[in-house]
Amino acid sequence: MALSLADQGKLAKEAAYQTGLLTTEAKNHILKKMSGALTARQDAILQANRKDMEAAGKKNIPASLLDRLMLNPGRIEDMSEGLLTVMSLPDPVGQVESMWTGAQEIQIGKIRVPLGVIGIIYESRPNVTADAAGLCLKTGNAVILRGGADAFLSNQAIATVLSEAAVEAGAPIGAVQLVQDPGRESARELMRMKEYLDVLIPRGGAGLIREVVENSTVPVIETGTGNCHIYIDAGADLEMGKSIILNAKTQRPGVCNAAETLLVHQSEAEAFLPGAAEALEAAGVELRGCPRVRQILPHIKEASEADYEQEFLDLILAIKVVDSLEDAMAHIRRYGTRHSESIITRDYRNARIFLKEVDAACVYVNASTRFTDGFQFGFGAEIGISTQKLHARGPMGLNELTTIKYIIYGDGQVRS
Amino acid sequence: MALSLADQGKLAKEAAYQTGLLTTEAKNHILKKMSGALTARQDAILQANRKDMEAAGKKNIPASLLDRLMLNPGRIEDMSEGLLTVMSLPDPVGQVESMWTGAQEIQIGKIRVPLGVIGIIYESRPNVTADAAGLCLKTGNAVILRGGADAFLSNQAIATVLSEAAVEAGAPIGAVQLVQDPGRESARELMRMKEYLDVLIPRGGAGLIREVVENSTVPVIETGTGNCHIYIDAGADLEMGKSIILNAKTQRPGVCNAAETLLVHQSEAEAFLPGAAEALEAAGVELRGCPRVRQILPHIKEASEADYEQEFLDLILAIKVVDSLEDAMAHIRRYGTRHSESIITRDYRNARIFLKEVDAACVYVNASTRFTDGFQFGFGAEIGISTQKLHARGPMGLNELTTIKYIIYGDGQVRS
Repeated sequence: MALSLADQGKLAKEAAYQTGLLTTEAKNHILKKMSGALTARQDAILQANRKDMEAAGKKNIPASLLDRLMLNPGRIEDMSEGLLTVMSLPDPVGQVESMWTGAQEIQIGKIRVPLGVIGIIYESRPNVTADAAGLCLKTGNAVILRGGADAFLSNQAIATVLSEAAVEAGAPIGAVQLVQDPGRESARELMRMKEYLDVLIPRGGAGLIREVVENSTVPVIETGTGNCHIYIDAGADLEMGKSIILNAKTQRPGVCNAAETLLVHQSEAEAFLPGAAEALEAAGVELRGCPRVRQILPHIKEASEADYEQEFLDLILAIKVVDSLEDAMAHIRRYGTRHSESIITRDYRNARIFLKEVDAACVYVNASTRFTDGFQFGFGAEIGISTQKLHARGPMGLNELTTIKYIIYGDGQVRS
Repeated sequence: MALSLADQGKLAKEAAYQTGLLTTEAKNHILKKMSGALTARQDAILQANRKDMEAAGKKNIPASLLDRLMLNPGRIEDMSEGLLTVMSLPDPVGQVESMWTGAQEIQIGKIRVPLGVIGIIYESRPNVTADAAGLCLKTGNAVILRGGADAFLSNQAIATVLSEAAVEAGAPIGAVQLVQDPGRESARELMRMKEYLDVLIPRGGAGLIREVVENSTVPVIETGTGNCHIYIDAGADLEMGKSIILNAKTQRPGVCNAAETLLVHQSEAEAFLPGAAEALEAAGVELRGCPRVRQILPHIKEASEADYEQEFLDLILAIKVVDSLEDAMAHIRRYGTRHSESIITRDYRNARIFLKEVDAACVYVNASTRFTDGFQFGFGAEIGISTQKLHARGPMGLNELTTIKYIIYGDGQVRS
């Protein structure tokens, strides 16, 4: 595969046309073969991964990143299972969303079709290669994957196994492709390939996403950054509040739907904060509070403006006492990233106001923000969580990898 | 109003929050007052328009553009009526599209909400100022309008009348704003105002749209370019074919859903072309054909590659004889702009293939491409016709000016 990136784009565009016409049965057959090939050829993948791990080990990469990069038979089995799950999901392509009669009795249908060619730029986790390939293929799209340099050999091995198995099972050549140069320039070039790409989805840290948004002429779906809040309302069930903030902060602190700031109504601060702080600190969380919080918890650090702004993605939590629901919502408007926000309340009216007024992809009453997830929502799959407002918002499943077209049945109508 | 563009953006963002919370009744009341103000204060608008017309007259602007720029009491009445029509349409905001139960019985609803702040960059027609303001307000958005330099005084007069009437009727200050500098720099600045704008919609010629797509960091909805085809299939009803190509080419040649190329199956060329050409030429259309067309119509010019590529937006039609349905679809794939494509056929199977395989916003059987229009589709309004695949495709009505958010009702659920 000594194709230039532009050649890869051209090939993908051609493949997308063919992939878009595959029946659901044909696509499911391909997914099944891809799934089988991952386990059957896992030795080649594990060998490539060992080389990536060795190189990464020499580069002083943090242990958490090394863990994300690492593959073992169990993780390959997970990828393989993931493809079978995608296979079992309903195919959105061809679904007629609605059909009605327009002017002069023309019959108009709105039918779901693939997007075309999807570009995905992602960072270290090699399982994204298999996940994204499966989701794009199921929805009749071609995909160009551009993984990170650290995982390049692993990604290459996975992509080779998958694309060979796919073609053997009847997929067009070029439906699943990996960019062969993991350097910065290839990502930049991909961002300008508007002629061949229909959409670009960056998956990774805030820096990557910003770079794609700033430089891409291809339409982008932004994923990711989540500065999420839990607000404990006046009169809330404080036990419930404690269990939710504990879950939202500590169950998996490194992900975008984890909570980063706790807001507490002034009337509950004294009753709530000591117990909550004890539980959070027992779970290893470092707390940073506003002056009113520190009157109750004098041992914790003061929260700075930067603490309210940042997505810690770590066992750190900012805490602020607010005067009212309005005050809490104003804080969320100012610092939130429109991802996931939750109110803990017993008050019917306040729940209604919070749901209506808070502008975010997912707005919760009495539940952990950690539910913002395609699987938890029941989509059966997830390509990422969109924090933008166009096309897709919140967890993106198979539907979000498709678009619509109108089909119009006439009998000779002309416009008058 | 000596606000900087950034100040206008900030104000719009603030206003959008308030506008998004207005009830349907409140928004309809505002639209009614805006409608009334246009006619009540038409003298100021007409006076401003006369100045624009005088300046344009001195600049050797083509008559067709002068006509687009010109306002009279009838056209102001049309704008005023347009606002009443928008008022009477159902409000998409607050509609729950679906509601279901996710993991652990959390109840998840998908609810329609405003996009936020919409930027619209448009060219000479001043009626866009009123149309866009009405559609954005009805959907709870704030709007920043940036019209062309030729229509600046007209746009300013209209925007002043509308925004004053809106505020008087209860709209937040800043919900409807016009950029006060119609120069190129202001458009460029608007394209980078990602902090304040949620979406940018360019309405105008191909050059404007390309510039916005190339330079914008704000998400863009592309509208416009339509290189549309009519394909006369083997065995088609030739009378129907003639009436459809005549309508699609001549009923309004300057718009994006007009046909630009006629494709004719070889088996129908001799029977179809002479009569069709006569009718088209009688309507003033200049024909340009491939060599096989010119064997039948030797008096017409030869069609060049450029003729197949271009959107004439004029009384010019390229004609090509094709060997088969596949050949016709290959031509459309190569030259089409994914806007509107129509097959004229009696063949059930060919109709099905064309509808399935042609990739365009609107794919027709036996009808004129001129139906690609929000009003003809029954949307009751139109902000433009999207030729991109993300978020909106084809005619955009009120729904396309909204997004969704998820609202989640829990009872203390945490993720396990």
